Amino acid sequence: MPPVPLPLRPELEGLLPYGAPQLDVPVRLNVNENPYPLADDVVADIAADVAVAARDLNRYPDRDFLALREDLAAYLAGEAGVRLAPEQLWAANGSNEVMLHLLQAFGGPGRTALSFAPTYSMYPEYARDTSTAWVAGRREADFTLDPTVAAAAIAAHAPSVVLLASPNNPTGTMLPVETIKAVLAAAALVPGGCVVVVDEAYGEFRRAGVPSALELLAQYPQLAVSRTMSKAFGLAGARVGYLAASSELIDALRVVRLPYHLSGVTQAVARAALRHAPALMAQVGSLRDERDACVAWLRERGLTVADTDANFVLFGTFDDRHAIWQGLLDAGVLIREVGPDGWLRVSIGTPDEMTAFKDALVEVAQL
Amino acid sequence: MPPVPLPLRPELEGLLPYGAPQLDVPVRLNVNENPYPLADDVVADIAADVAVAARDLNRYPDRDFLALREDLAAYLAGEAGVRLAPEQLWAANGSNEVMLHLLQAFGGPGRTALSFAPTYSMYPEYARDTSTAWVAGRREADFTLDPTVAAAAIAAHAPSVVLLASPNNPTGTMLPVETIKAVLAAAALVPGGCVVVVDEAYGEFRRAGVPSALELLAQYPQLAVSRTMSKAFGLAGARVGYLAASSELIDALRVVRLPYHLSGVTQAVARAALRHAPALMAQVGSLRDERDACVAWLRERGLTVADTDANFVLFGTFDDRHAIWQGLLDAGVLIREVGPDGWLRVSIGTPDEMTAFKDALVEVAQL
Repeated sequence: MPPVPLPLRPELEGLLPYGAPQLDVPVRLNVNENPYPLADDVVADIAADVAVAARDLNRYPDRDFLALREDLAAYLAGEAGVRLAPEQLWAANGSNEVMLHLLQAFGGPGRTALSFAPTYSMYPEYARDTSTAWVAGRREADFTLDPTVAAAAIAAHAPSVVLLASPNNPTGTMLPVETIKAVLAAAALVPGGCVVVVDEAYGEFRRAGVPSALELLAQYPQLAVSRTMSKAFGLAGARVGYLAASSELIDALRVVRLPYHLSGVTQAVARAALRHAPALMAQVGSLRDERDACVAWLRERGLTVADTDANFVLFGTFDDRHAIWQGLLDAGVLIREVGPDGWLRVSIGTPDEMTAFKDALVEVAQL
Repeated sequence: MPPVPLPLRPELEGLLPYGAPQLDVPVRLNVNENPYPLADDVVADIAADVAVAARDLNRYPDRDFLALREDLAAYLAGEAGVRLAPEQLWAANGSNEVMLHLLQAFGGPGRTALSFAPTYSMYPEYARDTSTAWVAGRREADFTLDPTVAAAAIAAHAPSVVLLASPNNPTGTMLPVETIKAVLAAAALVPGGCVVVVDEAYGEFRRAGVPSALELLAQYPQLAVSRTMSKAFGLAGARVGYLAASSELIDALRVVRLPYHLSGVTQAVARAALRHAPALMAQVGSLRDERDACVAWLRERGLTVADTDANFVLFGTFDDRHAIWQGLLDAGVLIREVGPDGWLRVSIGTPDEMTAFKDALVEVAQL
C-alpha cells in the first residue's frame, strides 16, 4: 500500500503544540501560577466532595451546572461588589474553553476577532481554532490602550469579537473603565454586532481602588467578563474558567458548548474551593504585596518595569534577553521569555522564590 | 442607548442546546449510562488519588498526560489484545471533545465530514461547531452498512473525515471488519487524504468473538478508533473520552487541543478507575447478558429489535412512538425517543430497572 496522506488543515502544517516548556527546576516563575499549594483543609474538602460526587459518576453531570453558577455569582458579589443572576454565569475547562465557546458562537469563518498587542499569545490560537480572522491592533509604548486608537481599529476592521486582557498578559496593564467604555461604544456601532470580552484572568490581583469591568455588565449586553480559578484560587490544575455576561449572551454559549463539557468532578472541586474563597483571597493579598515589592526592587536596580495589576511583572530591557533567561534557568530559576523584544516576565512566587530570583538576576544581569 | 445586537452566527439562530431531557424519574434508561454506581473501593481510590493530585493543583497539569496514556494503552492491550505505544493514545473531556479535536485538525471550512444515518445525533453538531460541511449517507433497512454504498458515497463526496459508530448509536449495529476495510480502502483514494474514525464508545459491550477496529490500526495510518470511559467504566460524569491512532495522527490533535485541556483531577480519576478495570469489566459482562435477555424478551413479544452490540436496544415499530414514550414516562420509566420514526431506544439498566421497563411496556403497548 502506498503511503496515505493525513488531511491536516494547511494552516496547521509544521506547527508545534502551544505551551511553555514544562521543565523541572527548583523555582518555577514562568506561567503565572499561584506558588501556594492548597491548604490542608481545602484539600480535605475537595477530596470529601469528590468522594460524594464519585457515587454519581455513572450518570452524566448536570449539563447546566446551576449550583456552581450560583456559587460563582455569590463569589463575584463579594469580590467585585456586583450582583449577578446564576444565568449570567458560564464556566468551562479553563478560560481558554470559555474563549473557544465565545468565538464559536460569535466569531468563525468570515468574521474577525480583534485585540491589541502585545497581549496574550493564545488569542490568535483561539481565532485559528475557530477559523476566525485575527487582527492585532497596537498598544502604546507603555502598554496602555489609547481609546481613540482602539475605536478607530474597531471601525476599520468591524470585528464581531474584541478581546481585551485586563490586566493584560504579559504586560500586567489594567484598562481604565473609560477605555473599556470607549471600546464598548465603538463596538456598538459595528453592523451586525460586536461582543467585547474583557479577560480578567488576573482580576483579583488588581491594586486597591481599581474597578473590575464586571461593574459595566448591567449597562452593556454585548460585554463579557471572563475570569479563572487558575490564578487567585491556585487551581490551575483543576481547569475552571468562567464568564459573566448578559443571560442572552450566555444562552448563545449553551448552544455551542459540547454537552456535559464540565465534569461532575470539576464541578465538585470548584464548589469546594469557592467555599474557601476568604482564606484564598487573603493569600492573594500577600502575593500583591510581593508583586509591588518586586516592582520597586527592579526599579531600584535601574530596570524598566511595566505597571502591573497582575501576579507577574514584565521588566527589561535587555539587549540579549535570551541570555538573561538562560542564565536564570542555569541558576534554577525559570521565568518566561515573552512579550516585546528585550523584555522578560517573572511570575510572583513565594518570598523565598522571589529571593532566589533576585539573587540570580543580580548575578546574571550584573545589577 | 438603542438595543445592541449580539453577533450570533446565523446557523445558530433559534437553536436550542443539545441534550436529552434531564428528568428526575425513578428509572432512567435514556442516555445509555451504566446503571451501576462505582463500588466503594473505586470511590475510595478516586478520592485518595484526587487528594494527592489536589496538592499540586496550583500548578498546571501535565499537558501531555503521558502516564494516563500509558494506562489507557495497557487497558486496551487487555481488552482488545492490541498493543499500542502511549504516543498512539489521546484523551479529552469526553469523546465529544476528542471528535472536536479530530474535526479541528482534519475537517473545518471547505471540508466535508461523512457518516451514515441513522447514527449518533451529535455528529452533525461536531461538524457545525467546526464549520465542517456535513453529509449523511444511508444505512440499509436493517441498519447495516453496505460496503459498496459506503465506498460510493466516499468517492462522491470526497470527505476529509468519515465517522463510523460501531456499535452504532442508536441502532446498536456493529460494523464487520470487512466493511471497515472497504471504507478505509475508499478513504485512501480521496485526494488530500481522509481520516476514518471508528467510534467505539460502546465497544466493550460487543458480543463474544466480535473484533474491535483497534486490530486494524497497525495497517492503516488514517484510522482512528475512539473509546470512552463513560459507558463500560461507569464514568459518564467524569468526562473521559480517548482515541487510538497512529502517532502522526495524534500529533495533529496536539496542535489543535487547548493547552492543559485535561485537568489534573480528571487524569487522577481516570487512572484510579483504570486500576479497577477487571472488576468493572465483569459488570460489563452482566450488562451484556441483561441486554441479550432484553432483546429476546422484546422479540418474544412480537416486536422488531435491531441486533445490538451495545448497552442499549432499539425496538419498535410503533405507529405513535411518542405515546409509548410518554406512557412509559408516566409509569416512571424514561427511555429515548430517537432513531428512525416508529422506533424507541432503551438503555440496559439493572435487573430491577429492566423489570420495571418490561412491566410498563406490557401495560402501555398492550403486549
